Amino acid sequence: MKINGRDYRALWIEKNSVKFIDQRKLPYSFKIFTAKNVDEVAFAIKDMVVRGAPAIGAAAAYGMALEKDVKKSAEKLRATRPTAYDLFYAIDYMIDKIDCGENGFDAAREYVEDIIERCKKIGENGEKLIKDGMKILTHCNAGALATVDYGTALAPFRLAHGNGKKFFVYVDETRPRLQGLLTAWELKHEGIKHAVIADNAAGYFMKNNEVDMVITGADRIAKNGDFANKIGTYEKAVLARENDIPFYVAAPISTFDNKIKDGSCIIIEEREKSELSEINGKTIMPEWTAVRNPAFDVTTVDYVTCYITEEGIIKK
Amino acid sequence: MKINGRDYRALWIEKNSVKFIDQRKLPYSFKIFTAKNVDEVAFAIKDMVVRGAPAIGAAAAYGMALEKDVKKSAEKLRATRPTAYDLFYAIDYMIDKIDCGENGFDAAREYVEDIIERCKKIGENGEKLIKDGMKILTHCNAGALATVDYGTALAPFRLAHGNGKKFFVYVDETRPRLQGLLTAWELKHEGIKHAVIADNAAGYFMKNNEVDMVITGADRIAKNGDFANKIGTYEKAVLARENDIPFYVAAPISTFDNKIKDGSCIIIEEREKSELSEINGKTIMPEWTAVRNPAFDVTTVDYVTCYITEEGIIKK
Repeated sequence: MKINGRDYRALWIEKNSVKFIDQRKLPYSFKIFTAKNVDEVAFAIKDMVVRGAPAIGAAAAYGMALEKDVKKSAEKLRATRPTAYDLFYAIDYMIDKIDCGENGFDAAREYVEDIIERCKKIGENGEKLIKDGMKILTHCNAGALATVDYGTALAPFRLAHGNGKKFFVYVDETRPRLQGLLTAWELKHEGIKHAVIADNAAGYFMKNNEVDMVITGADRIAKNGDFANKIGTYEKAVLARENDIPFYVAAPISTFDNKIKDGSCIIIEEREKSELSEINGKTIMPEWTAVRNPAFDVTTVDYVTCYITEEGIIKK
Repeated sequence: MKINGRDYRALWIEKNSVKFIDQRKLPYSFKIFTAKNVDEVAFAIKDMVVRGAPAIGAAAAYGMALEKDVKKSAEKLRATRPTAYDLFYAIDYMIDKIDCGENGFDAAREYVEDIIERCKKIGENGEKLIKDGMKILTHCNAGALATVDYGTALAPFRLAHGNGKKFFVYVDETRPRLQGLLTAWELKHEGIKHAVIADNAAGYFMKNNEVDMVITGADRIAKNGDFANKIGTYEKAVLARENDIPFYVAAPISTFDNKIKDGSCIIIEEREKSELSEINGKTIMPEWTAVRNPAFDVTTVDYVTCYITEEGIIKK
C-alpha cells in the first residue's frame, strides 16, 4: 500500500526485527512499531498494534522466526488472542516447516507472500468489475492493514486505480468501532477519491443513484454462500438489492467454510458496551445508558451478486 | 414527561419567566435554564437550549408574551433560527391574538396546550397498536423534548406504559448527532425498558425476529404519503418491509404538506462536516477526512404501514 508516496506493508522484517504500522495510532498518526523479539511481537498482537486475522497470522509467522526455542515462542504467541484462527494456523505452519529443517525467515516470508499474492489476485479479478466514473460503497475495513497488503474488498480499488480508472468510494464510518476511518486513511494515501458517510446515509446515496456497486469483505462464508461480516453489512446488502445495485463479497477461498451448512449455524458475538459508549477511550454516552452491541451479522446468499476470490469471480 | 418521578415539560411559564429543560446538557445532566425576557428566550432558541420545531414554536409564543413591545419581540425571535417554520407560525399567531386584545400569556398557553393535546391524542391512537411483550424500534428523537410533552413517535410508548403494557424499545443511536441518546434519556425516566444500538444493528435485530414494529416521527409528509425524516429512516423502513415488520409514522396533521406532490419535491439539506467528525465538541476523525453528510432522507409511501395522527390512524 502507498503511504506518503512510498510502498508499505502492514508489517515486515527489517534487520532481524518485525516492523509494524502501529494501528493503535491510526488514522490519527502514522508511527512504526519495532518488535525485536517474540515477546515484543506477542505484545504487538495482544495490544492491537496489528489487527485483522491475516495480518495477525503474518505477525505470528514472523515472530516464530525470531527465536531459536520454537516451543516457547509458540506458547507465547498462542497466549495473545484466543479466538484468532489465522494465528494458530500460522504458528502450526511454522512449527511444521522448522521441524522439516526449513529456515524460519524463509518459511515466514513464504507464508506472508502467499497471503499477499492471494489478495493481489482478488484485486486483479475484482478490478474488472470497476468501470470509469463508477461510485462504489464499502463497509468496514477490508484493507491492506488487515491483510499485510492490498486487502480484500479494497484490493480491486487499488488495482483499478493503478490502471488509471477514475471512480469514487463511499466509506461507511462503520459504527461502533469506526473502521471506516481506516479505509478512508488507506484510500487517501492511495490517492483514491472518497468520502466517509454515516452508516445511516448509505441508503440515501443508493436511492439517489449515487452508488453503482457495493464491495465488502467477509469473515466467514458458509457452504451455501451465506456470510458473516461486520455489523451493518446485512443492512447495506438489503438496501443494495432494493435499489438494484450489485453487491460483491471479496474474500480468499480460505474464508469459505464448508463445515458450515448455512448462515443460521454462525453464532454472532455480542461485545462489550464500551465499544458503543466510548470513542478513543472517551465516553460519549451517559453511564446509565443500556446498550446491545452485536459485532457481526449474517447476510444470506440471496443478496450477493458474486464472490470475488483469488481463483476468479464465483457466481452464487 | 416523567423526570426523576416528577412531571415536566420541555419548557413552561413560571413567575413571568420561561423555564427550559436545558437540552444542551442532555443526556449527560439535567439542568433548568431560566429566560426572564425575550432576549433570553431568543438566546435559548438560538443556542439550542430548546430543540425540535414544535418546542421552538412554544418558546416563541411564550417569548412574545413576556414583553409589551410586540413588534420588537417578534423581530428578535425571528432572527434566531431562519428555517424553523413553527417559529414564524407561532410569532404570527401571537401577533394576531394580541392585536385582537387577547392576553399574551393566555394566548401562548392556548398555543402550547394545543400542541400537547395533539401529541397526547397521537399517543392514545398509537398505543392501541402496542401489545404486551412487543419489541419496537425507533429512530432519532421524536419525543417530549421536541414537542413540549408526550412527543410524536414516543407518545404511544408513554400511553401504553401508563396503561401497564410491557414492551421493549430498540433505540437507534442515530448518527451523526446521536439523538437516540435523548430518546433513551426520556425512556429511562419514564421507566420503559430499552437499549441503544448502533444504527448498523437495526437490521440484525429485525432479521432475528426481535422487532415487532417500527415507529418514527416525520419532518414533512407529501400529499402522496412520501415523507422526509432524519437520515437513516429510509434504511430502517426498507429493512422493516424486507422482514415483514409494520412501519408506522407518528405525526400531527400539520406535518402533511399538500403543496408537495411527492417526496421527489423535498430538497434534502447536506450539513457541515463537524456533525460527523465531532462528538460533544471533540474531534473523532482526522482533520483530512472527507465527508458527506445529508441530514434527512425521503421514504416513499410504499414502505409505510400507517400514519398515526391526532385524528386517528390513517391508512396510506
